[in-house]
Amino acid sequence: MAEPFTLHEDPRSGNCYKIKLTAALLGLPLATRQYDIMQGETRTPEFLATVNANGRIPVLQIGEGSGVRFLPESNAACWYLAEGSPLIPDDRFDRADMLRWMFFEQYNHEPNVATLRFWLRFVGEGNLSDQQRGQIMAKRVAGADALRVMDEHLAARDWLVGEAATLADIALYAYTHKAEEAGFGLGDYPAIGRWLARVAGLPRFVTMDLHSRPG
Amino acid sequence: MAEPFTLHEDPRSGNCYKIKLTAALLGLPLATRQYDIMQGETRTPEFLATVNANGRIPVLQIGEGSGVRFLPESNAACWYLAEGSPLIPDDRFDRADMLRWMFFEQYNHEPNVATLRFWLRFVGEGNLSDQQRGQIMAKRVAGADALRVMDEHLAARDWLVGEAATLADIALYAYTHKAEEAGFGLGDYPAIGRWLARVAGLPRFVTMDLHSRPG
Repeated sequence: MAEPFTLHEDPRSGNCYKIKLTAALLGLPLATRQYDIMQGETRTPEFLATVNANGRIPVLQIGEGSGVRFLPESNAACWYLAEGSPLIPDDRFDRADMLRWMFFEQYNHEPNVATLRFWLRFVGEGNLSDQQRGQIMAKRVAGADALRVMDEHLAARDWLVGEAATLADIALYAYTHKAEEAGFGLGDYPAIGRWLARVAGLPRFVTMDLHSRPG
Repeated sequence: MAEPFTLHEDPRSGNCYKIKLTAALLGLPLATRQYDIMQGETRTPEFLATVNANGRIPVLQIGEGSGVRFLPESNAACWYLAEGSPLIPDDRFDRADMLRWMFFEQYNHEPNVATLRFWLRFVGEGNLSDQQRGQIMAKRVAGADALRVMDEHLAARDWLVGEAATLADIALYAYTHKAEEAGFGLGDYPAIGRWLARVAGLPRFVTMDLHSRPG
């Protein structure tokens, strides 16, 4: 029954890490094929025609050969892998509330925290365009606001939704635990700090940097 | 069994319209409470403390009184309303693929098409900050790219996912059908044009501008 899964990824990307962490927590085998986004390897005609017309990774490949299917968008790929598992809550409200945090992640958190990390850690501040440099301050403010919302929410609870880890925690862990690389001081967010340790303590957890080994 | 639903909204927002359209297509009663985002009415201490600490609308209120719950994020609210209905596909891949388009909407489409519409149609180009004005060109390019991805995908199919309308179509209809207010010429995207007409032809469809009446 189990179809082979292949992740088209760049290991530096937190969006790719989400999917690897989901697979690891569920004990699902996941092959990887790596691309260097700095070299435009996800914008080649072949990639655009077969893997993702949007020219982005991660993409989860499900199956092989004539029945192969491709699923872009990190949080959708996590959902596919986790269906039927405890990482998606049974309760109807909690399930929607989990998606709420995953949309928050893509709208309020990733475009600020992940983009600043990419610019500052990988592109380098000196190589940014004037237009990018002009957005740094706004992204710092918006990213800090997203972290504040998370920290306040986590002050009185262990997990973002319900009483156990869900995909919401995985989705937001990915770039939050690298937020210092984006210039955010995690010491300002004590509830986030405790929650990060909780996620990293989950059975079968893998780290982002050594993702093929137990963390 | 049915809990009363109240939408905290600004009627000019396509993100709010998504939820009203979902409720209408499903025949679900939905009360509304309106806020003027231009006047900061979603940033009051009361709103932040009770409705959404993120200071944003839409928020779907489920129930009343002591059991009341609040669900932010437009696409999560649509999901809550549509669970168990044909607007969410039964097939596992299609369900994840529907979420894929909904995350695409929030990441690639809304921050460009909806933000440009907000700036140009409601704030007014002359009232933009230099920093906002400096982003217009990048948002035009990224918004056109999102529309191109949709148009190519829709060239050979009637709906974004599977063989019938899903939440993916509702989520992307909301700002795509207003894209000309954001400065995008829909004549450049013929498959999108046909798809917009298909969505508007769904039974019980309601328009954004006259949302309380049949479209």
